[in-house]
Amino acid sequence: VYSPGVTDEFTIRTRRAARESRIRIEPGGLARAGEFARRLSGARRVAVVGDAAVARRYAPTLLRSLSRAGFECERIDVPQGERAKQPAHLVRLWSGFAAAGLGRADLVVAVGGGVTGDLAGFAAATWMRGVDWIGVPTTLLAQVDSSIGGKTAIDLPAGKNLAGAYHPPVGVLVDPETLRTLPDRQRRAGLAEVVKTGMAVDAALFAWLEREAGSVAAGETGALAVAIARSLKAKARIVQRDERDSGPRTALNFGHTLGHALEAARSYRGPLHGEAVAVGMRTAAALSVRCAGLSPNARERLDALLDRFRLPRRMPPTPVARLFACMERDKKADAHGVRWVLTPRVGHASVPRLIPRRLVRAALLEAGARG
Amino acid sequence: VYSPGVTDEFTIRTRRAARESRIRIEPGGLARAGEFARRLSGARRVAVVGDAAVARRYAPTLLRSLSRAGFECERIDVPQGERAKQPAHLVRLWSGFAAAGLGRADLVVAVGGGVTGDLAGFAAATWMRGVDWIGVPTTLLAQVDSSIGGKTAIDLPAGKNLAGAYHPPVGVLVDPETLRTLPDRQRRAGLAEVVKTGMAVDAALFAWLEREAGSVAAGETGALAVAIARSLKAKARIVQRDERDSGPRTALNFGHTLGHALEAARSYRGPLHGEAVAVGMRTAAALSVRCAGLSPNARERLDALLDRFRLPRRMPPTPVARLFACMERDKKADAHGVRWVLTPRVGHASVPRLIPRRLVRAALLEAGARG
Repeated sequence: VYSPGVTDEFTIRTRRAARESRIRIEPGGLARAGEFARRLSGARRVAVVGDAAVARRYAPTLLRSLSRAGFECERIDVPQGERAKQPAHLVRLWSGFAAAGLGRADLVVAVGGGVTGDLAGFAAATWMRGVDWIGVPTTLLAQVDSSIGGKTAIDLPAGKNLAGAYHPPVGVLVDPETLRTLPDRQRRAGLAEVVKTGMAVDAALFAWLEREAGSVAAGETGALAVAIARSLKAKARIVQRDERDSGPRTALNFGHTLGHALEAARSYRGPLHGEAVAVGMRTAAALSVRCAGLSPNARERLDALLDRFRLPRRMPPTPVARLFACMERDKKADAHGVRWVLTPRVGHASVPRLIPRRLVRAALLEAGARG
Repeated sequence: VYSPGVTDEFTIRTRRAARESRIRIEPGGLARAGEFARRLSGARRVAVVGDAAVARRYAPTLLRSLSRAGFECERIDVPQGERAKQPAHLVRLWSGFAAAGLGRADLVVAVGGGVTGDLAGFAAATWMRGVDWIGVPTTLLAQVDSSIGGKTAIDLPAGKNLAGAYHPPVGVLVDPETLRTLPDRQRRAGLAEVVKTGMAVDAALFAWLEREAGSVAAGETGALAVAIARSLKAKARIVQRDERDSGPRTALNFGHTLGHALEAARSYRGPLHGEAVAVGMRTAAALSVRCAGLSPNARERLDALLDRFRLPRRMPPTPVARLFACMERDKKADAHGVRWVLTPRVGHASVPRLIPRRLVRAALLEAGARG
């Protein structure tokens, strides 16, 4: 089904921004980033933005390749973790671009996890009213999820991702070998988004994951490369039809009604995003059996696959009332009920539906919430 | 030719953003802003952003009309003058939007001069990845120039307008009666941009200005309404063809090579923008006679019209070297020469052309620069 070391490349076209994103999945591709960037950009200067730890590991390889391709490079480090998404770091990036002499036709390269892409992508979206950028995601979550779709953002004290822009990268370079140094827990959490894509929009991907769960769970580079490529292509098909979060794209929010609420209710210091989404998917599947005609057998397949990746079955004890409050703040809940993306069958999601609060409450309690 | 009190309305369509801007010029229109906004937006909440002085004068009328149209309004004041375009005030606006509970389908209304539109428009462009906004420009410069085209931006220590977005307003409401309280000098400076539009792209507008110079210079509301409407329509024709600053839109930079350099060389504490552009246009016309075949008679017509509006003939004494340095920083000049938009005849501009430095130097000295 997959051959290790294989390179895959395809294009995502977005209607709204009249832009193309070229996606390349290449084990070892980091060392050839310069050629990839040169095909996509006539820039003279490149600002390479990375979080401190990632940049220390990968920036030298990246800068060498970019320099060989004729780019004048400037490296700009940002802090690790979500705090990099504060407005002050956006302003610092803009100042860095100014100091680097980055012009309208120049390029930003973001290397790191989703946080770095969100921040550097937003800085690129707004520098001189928009310059091109290339994403080089180095976590599985960023490689399969946040690296495409064009959403960039920073956080404000009032909430996450409140300020941002739709600004798809001209290119995304995924090097699955960067996952070798990714902590096991983070890799498993990233797999939750692959499972989500299969369950919500791609039955064949779901079946492939069931077959290859062993090598995927073991973190074999070739297997991960295929999982990433299939996941990105499925996401691309959706995003191309619906660049904003309105129509078909809502399918990709499967598991996220509870996932987001759980993260927020634990002040983002609880489960990892993928872990919270895993609990969210299990709960959405339970509600799907009850309200959308999902077969109990299909629900069990989802649970079994998540188990293979050692993703949590239950949430840490969290008050139901706090979860409801977070869903309300997220505009997912009101007096009438809570909006959930349900799956009538594997590979198919419905548009978000209002589920009565009492059914949601029961499902949350079943998932480990406290009454 | 014009009837005082007449209302004019038209639509600008921009290719890139697949967006329409509805432009309405209506004396006294401020008191009917709510109806205009309601036609363009289904928002529940509106954040009304104005600079302190302008907001004090106009916000009550505006808020009353918006409330009558069923909007829940929140007023957010920003400081007067260019310093409002600092990153800290962008962040303050975002926080204000959060406090006002402004959602994706809600609306920002910016009331004031170009600075307020630039700042509030950029905040709207980036709030939740883009919400609609309506501009209510209250200076002549903003009414004829910065209110359309979709450019929004803030300043950084490294330079003006370095961070921003293309985000056209869904509507622009121009109430020429707001100009009654505008200082005479600011009104005359605003007329420089009207003259520019005539000279660069609309010979009929230029001829109209020559005929009606008396009532325009006197600030008669009806005359100004017509000048604004004709100027905006001419600009709209250009912007629709070229949303970024590449092709035909460069014509609108007539007078701005020197205009921008002069403002920067005097650290933005010298001539007003329109005054600097007036000197810039006179110099560009002199170069156009020399290099682009403009007739000496046409140059005299431009000078005479600018004289009617008491716009300056010469710049304050400014070192030629400093002007060249500013043009270089603005990417208008290099070792080979300086890029100018010239006018072969009234109403027609050429694409920017490289003019030899010695010719530019002579023209600058003639315009009052110091050797």
